[in-house]
Amino acid sequence: MPELRKDPITQEWVIVAVERGKRPSDFPREPRVFEIPTRKCPFCPGNEQSTPPELLAFRPPGSPPNTPGWWVRVVPNKYPALAIEGEVRKSGRGIYDYMNGVGAHEVIIESPEHGISPAIMSVKQVEDVMWAYRARYLDLEGDHRLKYVLLFRNHKRVAGASLEHPHSQLIATPMVPQDVMAEMEGATRYEQYHERCVYCDMISQELDEGERVVLENEHFLAIEPYASKYPFETWILPRRHRSSFAAISNEEQTSFAAALKEMLLRIYLLLDDPPYNYTLHTAPTRTTSDEHLHWHLEIMPRLTITAGFEMGTGIYINVTAPELAASHLREVKIAAEQIA
Amino acid sequence: MPELRKDPITQEWVIVAVERGKRPSDFPREPRVFEIPTRKCPFCPGNEQSTPPELLAFRPPGSPPNTPGWWVRVVPNKYPALAIEGEVRKSGRGIYDYMNGVGAHEVIIESPEHGISPAIMSVKQVEDVMWAYRARYLDLEGDHRLKYVLLFRNHKRVAGASLEHPHSQLIATPMVPQDVMAEMEGATRYEQYHERCVYCDMISQELDEGERVVLENEHFLAIEPYASKYPFETWILPRRHRSSFAAISNEEQTSFAAALKEMLLRIYLLLDDPPYNYTLHTAPTRTTSDEHLHWHLEIMPRLTITAGFEMGTGIYINVTAPELAASHLREVKIAAEQIA
Repeated sequence: MPELRKDPITQEWVIVAVERGKRPSDFPREPRVFEIPTRKCPFCPGNEQSTPPELLAFRPPGSPPNTPGWWVRVVPNKYPALAIEGEVRKSGRGIYDYMNGVGAHEVIIESPEHGISPAIMSVKQVEDVMWAYRARYLDLEGDHRLKYVLLFRNHKRVAGASLEHPHSQLIATPMVPQDVMAEMEGATRYEQYHERCVYCDMISQELDEGERVVLENEHFLAIEPYASKYPFETWILPRRHRSSFAAISNEEQTSFAAALKEMLLRIYLLLDDPPYNYTLHTAPTRTTSDEHLHWHLEIMPRLTITAGFEMGTGIYINVTAPELAASHLREVKIAAEQIA
Repeated sequence: MPELRKDPITQEWVIVAVERGKRPSDFPREPRVFEIPTRKCPFCPGNEQSTPPELLAFRPPGSPPNTPGWWVRVVPNKYPALAIEGEVRKSGRGIYDYMNGVGAHEVIIESPEHGISPAIMSVKQVEDVMWAYRARYLDLEGDHRLKYVLLFRNHKRVAGASLEHPHSQLIATPMVPQDVMAEMEGATRYEQYHERCVYCDMISQELDEGERVVLENEHFLAIEPYASKYPFETWILPRRHRSSFAAISNEEQTSFAAALKEMLLRIYLLLDDPPYNYTLHTAPTRTTSDEHLHWHLEIMPRLTITAGFEMGTGIYINVTAPELAASHLREVKIAAEQIA
């Protein structure tokens, strides 16, 4: 089982693969390209036996699990970063803290089609992927060992994707991750002073000023945040204040999928299908109050390299001002059939 | 002038290039190789006019500045992330905070030889580079606008180096960066409880246990830290507790250069000259107390890709346990002439 180790100085957790860890010769000397031919792709229809048994699939009524016909399919990760079996055990080793690596690691296969991605899928398909996110979120929220569920997507090899077939991932952790704690603490600090949600204030200022807004629909808006760390970093925020993604309504889900799909398409067209990561920021599991967080999704195109300065200070150097990025993204011409 | 913008939620600063920012077409579609032939390299001897005038050079007595003959040379960065002219101005824009991008950005050219790197330089040359670090640090510490000085090295393109010629960089900022604050706060928390330095305790536990120690010399040790974020992450720590690198003695400097050079060589031999970043962690400028920090250098080989999970949680997945990494690094065979 992997270990969770806590840095005694910064209190940051790290997942360490203590068994079957990589040896020096296991690391590629050159960046690798995707090596698996489609016929052997474990996420392609017909190869359902190459993955662990499915946890969820949207498929025609009556069709047997782990057979073709599905349009969204969720399976456990074959090489999980955290293991689903066992109880959380915590202990100390001198000055160091340790927790065993209990958690969940799942793959959301977003389409049966190998060569597609959310930017060029139908809005309906993206919405179904979001429904799969929500279903898995709600299922894992029932597991009292799990304190946080992260849903995220790595697009292309340089953004960390190890398979080309379109997929998202879910990792659930036995503690609230440090960056989520930092967001909640920041929002709490702001709320204690102003008695308002910092995200709600941000939405209101952005809509007033307009220069960093890329799109708006009934329930969501997409902005290039004022302190973007990455060129063309984009946040998709619900207008309605809720701390948890799990609180999304049916109507909001449609609006969310439309905003996400359109932003990914604008980025795809403007930057020639760049590598990116996106992450869904939400409250810890079983948070019943709506204070101190406002769930949203962050898209980070990977156009530049994070290097020594960022690693030594935490300060990112963003070479494209968000106002300029927003203006370019707004100007992308989109045909009606591209966002259907 | 670049801007420093503060994230209203996490309070993290970002440097934003508001003028001459990169447009969508400025980002490479494919990873680039080093494109500059040696004869045009701005850091090679004979091309001194291609850089801004030198701030410091180790060269034969009486030889004129900005001419060949030097063995270490420091120049301002031609494309600085922060600008050296002007006063620090701070203001608000609605909920957002802003500071103008005053600071320093310098390049330490580590050798006249284009194709070398610290792993294969002489220890004496590495020591001279460290003397250049210290001289520039002390000079900038006198500038009261600057609150922090980061010295760092990006090795190879995938670790963010834009030129092949061996060089380090220095960036000085008008505020204490968030990650330095976090380290100091963490060390303070530990000290308030235990009345001991967390780094001193770490050194003592590591030397007792031995399994994560790679090398020791008179004044320094090199370990693979317990909560390493990266495979083969290495810290070089002084045995003597001092918060600032500026406090290093002549004797310690020799010992520091020997430890750094040997660790870079071990990594070079074991992992076939991998890309890496290193960063020098030290107290903010003009820190007079030795509490709450213990200066050290962190080396982070770039063997894996930081992706959505790390970006959404701050939790790194390290696929090589530090105990295994230390064992491999200790076993590297080194000939006496390689560390002379």
